[in-house]
Amino acid sequence: METEGYRFMDQSVHKVTLVPENRSVEVPAGITLREALSLLEVIVTAPCGGEGTCGKCTVKLENGSAGVTPLTSSERALLTSEQLSAGIRLSCLARVSGDTVVSVPPASRASEMRVLAGGKGRNVPVQPAVVKTVVVMPPQTLDEPYARLEHLRRCGALRADLRADLEMLRRIPAILEAGDHMTAVMHGNRLLDLQPGDTSGVCFGLALDLGTTTVVATLIDLTTGRDVARASMTNRQTAYGHDVVGRINLTIEKSDGLETLRRAALESLNRVTEQVVDRAGIRREDIYEATVVGNATMMHLFLGISPASLGKLPYIATVGDAVTAPADEVGLNLRPDTPVYVLPNIAGFVGADTVGAILATSLDEDDGRVRMMADIGTNCEIALRMGKRLIVTSTPAGPAFEGARIACGMYAAPGAIEEIKINGDVRCKTIGREPPRGLCGSGLVDACAELLRLGVVDWTGRMLPVTEHDGGLPRFLLDRLTAHENDLAFTLSQSDSGRPIVLTQRDFRELQLAKGAIRTGIDLLLEKAGLTVDDLDEFCVAGGFGNYLNEANAVRLGLLPRLPSGEIRFIGNGALVGAKLTLLSSVMRQTGEQVARQAEHLQIAGTPDFQMRFSEAMLFEPQT
Amino acid sequence: METEGYRFMDQSVHKVTLVPENRSVEVPAGITLREALSLLEVIVTAPCGGEGTCGKCTVKLENGSAGVTPLTSSERALLTSEQLSAGIRLSCLARVSGDTVVSVPPASRASEMRVLAGGKGRNVPVQPAVVKTVVVMPPQTLDEPYARLEHLRRCGALRADLRADLEMLRRIPAILEAGDHMTAVMHGNRLLDLQPGDTSGVCFGLALDLGTTTVVATLIDLTTGRDVARASMTNRQTAYGHDVVGRINLTIEKSDGLETLRRAALESLNRVTEQVVDRAGIRREDIYEATVVGNATMMHLFLGISPASLGKLPYIATVGDAVTAPADEVGLNLRPDTPVYVLPNIAGFVGADTVGAILATSLDEDDGRVRMMADIGTNCEIALRMGKRLIVTSTPAGPAFEGARIACGMYAAPGAIEEIKINGDVRCKTIGREPPRGLCGSGLVDACAELLRLGVVDWTGRMLPVTEHDGGLPRFLLDRLTAHENDLAFTLSQSDSGRPIVLTQRDFRELQLAKGAIRTGIDLLLEKAGLTVDDLDEFCVAGGFGNYLNEANAVRLGLLPRLPSGEIRFIGNGALVGAKLTLLSSVMRQTGEQVARQAEHLQIAGTPDFQMRFSEAMLFEPQT
Repeated sequence: METEGYRFMDQSVHKVTLVPENRSVEVPAGITLREALSLLEVIVTAPCGGEGTCGKCTVKLENGSAGVTPLTSSERALLTSEQLSAGIRLSCLARVSGDTVVSVPPASRASEMRVLAGGKGRNVPVQPAVVKTVVVMPPQTLDEPYARLEHLRRCGALRADLRADLEMLRRIPAILEAGDHMTAVMHGNRLLDLQPGDTSGVCFGLALDLGTTTVVATLIDLTTGRDVARASMTNRQTAYGHDVVGRINLTIEKSDGLETLRRAALESLNRVTEQVVDRAGIRREDIYEATVVGNATMMHLFLGISPASLGKLPYIATVGDAVTAPADEVGLNLRPDTPVYVLPNIAGFVGADTVGAILATSLDEDDGRVRMMADIGTNCEIALRMGKRLIVTSTPAGPAFEGARIACGMYAAPGAIEEIKINGDVRCKTIGREPPRGLCGSGLVDACAELLRLGVVDWTGRMLPVTEHDGGLPRFLLDRLTAHENDLAFTLSQSDSGRPIVLTQRDFRELQLAKGAIRTGIDLLLEKAGLTVDDLDEFCVAGGFGNYLNEANAVRLGLLPRLPSGEIRFIGNGALVGAKLTLLSSVMRQTGEQVARQAEHLQIAGTPDFQMRFSEAMLFEPQT
Repeated sequence: METEGYRFMDQSVHKVTLVPENRSVEVPAGITLREALSLLEVIVTAPCGGEGTCGKCTVKLENGSAGVTPLTSSERALLTSEQLSAGIRLSCLARVSGDTVVSVPPASRASEMRVLAGGKGRNVPVQPAVVKTVVVMPPQTLDEPYARLEHLRRCGALRADLRADLEMLRRIPAILEAGDHMTAVMHGNRLLDLQPGDTSGVCFGLALDLGTTTVVATLIDLTTGRDVARASMTNRQTAYGHDVVGRINLTIEKSDGLETLRRAALESLNRVTEQVVDRAGIRREDIYEATVVGNATMMHLFLGISPASLGKLPYIATVGDAVTAPADEVGLNLRPDTPVYVLPNIAGFVGADTVGAILATSLDEDDGRVRMMADIGTNCEIALRMGKRLIVTSTPAGPAFEGARIACGMYAAPGAIEEIKINGDVRCKTIGREPPRGLCGSGLVDACAELLRLGVVDWTGRMLPVTEHDGGLPRFLLDRLTAHENDLAFTLSQSDSGRPIVLTQRDFRELQLAKGAIRTGIDLLLEKAGLTVDDLDEFCVAGGFGNYLNEANAVRLGLLPRLPSGEIRFIGNGALVGAKLTLLSSVMRQTGEQVARQAEHLQIAGTPDFQMRFSEAMLFEPQT
């Protein structure tokens, strides 16, 4: 009987018992031991994805081999004779054919890690692409004519398909000469390094978010999955334009524009990397992998690929796939051969950052609920999960929430007003409790919502002059109505130097444009799926201001939908969480790539009545 | 019903008809169309090896889809809707379930090529790793938000798993900007280049043999499989020692020894490459791949990997696997990213050259016969095929056949005596019919065999002085017996300048050492398999002098076994034929890698009675 691809006519059910835990599960004949163990909540590590090629998902049969299918030829090839005689099997190949008792060696267990995103987050097995394995390599005899690399594979129980770049191959003889106790650093099936002694406890990864405005680095201990340090700073590219359009234009207008922007991004990324390395007190050489998220334009600029096609109809990326390239080619100051993994793009304006946010919110999975996620920035990306479908779109929200084009707007930096309550008086809370300097995104939302609620602004977004209020407005509000550069304005506060901090009519219009764009995106995406807001079970908000946004005010403005019974979750920087998930788990990486390939993309600007819908969405619900 | 991994309970037999050829074959239900077509002697191209991932093995169903299994999801993903509605299927996935009629589009047919090796050679489908595909890429619309690379894949029907290195990705936008008609150069799933217009007719490969003594380059037109030019020269490494041991020692004794030897090899290889490029009148940039053979030491030196471990017990290579590295890292003057494929080694002294010779002699296949191959050089590698077993060994033949340590020895260059007949007189034939300058390998064999036959030398290899012949030897032979540097010698001829060309007693001992080593290898390998010379159905001789060796003389000396009924075939440079086969056919490449992994290696020096066997093998059969 053939044992590869063994197929069961057998409909019986058998018991799989895990020792020493002594937990059992009844499973149908024919499922793999790895599947059975996952039912017992033990994730067996499988760098090859359970394809029977890496030889890492070993388990031990504790009461003989009667309850499992016969040895496959792959197992014979991948396991040593000692392992075979000790009852070791590959759990992705051995299938249940009777009652069986197994144990899982510690090395085969993938530890689980909860990665938080807005309080909830998701559980992932810690299974990074980079793995360190200790190898003791005794001298060879004449009876073992294997090449040194093959001997290393056998002694270290390394993957049978292990390979090494020429540079690494050239370094091997001297390293093997130095001693027989060493640590192999593997990236997938590639030998990244071979280090004297046991260095398996020291293994770091770097999750990078190259935002249009801000860059963030998180250093992660890949042996535990825990964050070790974080740093952020303004993207130095902002010196060349605040939005992606300006930057794309620079690459078209100036022959060195692409290189200028690439270097600016790298300066920022290398700076935050330096900071996390310093803060954690580690050696830069102990970082073995980096993952990078950002929107499609940022990813093109980072990789040095012209983003010109993203700047004109039909707005397409040059590369949508995930890209892995060595650090020295990319320009990151890490070990030259460190793999840098750039998450895939879905479409020109739905980039790697959205894939990251989708992973952060588990939107890649169908959990039976209807869920939506909006990543709000200058560009707002929206994703909808409904059953097997995942539909995404993007809409140009504009830079209002980042302070641009707002009279007193500013980034969410110390001194920015981030909360406003108007109740008999105007109370402003600033970031870092510092004297007010301007208005950031969440403050803008609060200001607009409060002025709308109080009738300072009507449902069309018009700020009424004092003369039109005819007594309907309390004095303390009327007193704040003023003029600002030929525009009507409402004074919120004033700075240390006495400069008034105002919200102008034009600011309100900017908010309306942003809100109109976002709501049009949300509504058209729902329509595309044949749904309405009432069908939503959950709505996640990702993006810079996510954590600080006043939910009631955002709903009042119509920026966020009013969910009948569901939940609005603020998850903060979902893109960065995604970068972290793909750094921690190869499975998440595959999932992200699948998302990029399979998501349906809705081009809302192409919707026939888009313009009309957009104008309508700029208006507000009548206030009661 | 599940269609992936569709399994047949059905025992029926169906007819598959190929049109327009109108040939048919009856096949069991369940085999793939590709398998069925191979029975009709049509090889359908499948760069992915028939794994259903490349989408290239298209065939067309000519009378509907009733006779084949339903569409798989992979086919849905890889074929366009136009293809699907035209009845196009992937022949590695569609399985026979009834009578069916198919046609094979020209693009899907792998052309066959006979690669000669000693008159016979083997047929291989021309299926190089490098493939050029013409792509016409119309502009995209808003409804096709695919990244440019994805659009390229779809328009060119390129592999779904196509990827490009960062350097290539950076070049893509400008190339696509320049026009919509282009040619994609693919190496496996990797995009090597994208060229304006249709360049598909221009595609060359380079097969390189880095011998210890000689380097050879053959330029091959990958669109037809034909040789275009060939060049050879002495390996410049010979300036640093004539055998591998001397070169290994140089790398140990001098800190720059490895680099010196690497550069010397590269100078020679780059020189012969220049010559073939000039002779063929092509552009160097049109070479898209190189394959390289040589012994394990040469391959290590070529790659810049220390061969030190090959120079001491237990004589092991650092790397045994096939290595693919870009030309610029390797140091070959080709396009910087040209993949250079180095064939795998079996053991320290059974290298890539032997793998090549095994492919050249089809020894990788079990054809039911018992076959042996010996590649005779300074080191002699021997391989034995018997049923499912392939056993290899190596034995130090010494440099006698290359002229070293022979009084009047020389390489097989113009003026070398390559044939000798003694019959009433001594007649010598030289290479190029030039005046005699010395003795090359085949001349040495002839000289020794004739002297043995005539009794000038006895069965122990002792050259008898004139005084011991007491009348048994004709006068013309006795007259030629003389002394040469305190040694007995036999004068064969004389040079233009009157210098005698002799064979000395010591030369004869050198031949005996070489012959003893080779025969011990042959005999012990046969013994290991439980066979004798009488079981051999075929014996192939590869190596520099193969084509010119007098078979009867080699058998007389016992250098080659006396086959009862079988055939001795001289195949010349089998290693180079192997390099060519792997350049022409990805299948041959996989086969070579399998050979390297699966061949059993016999370390004859480790055989207990090796020394005694070796001494015995130095003697000759009594001459009649």
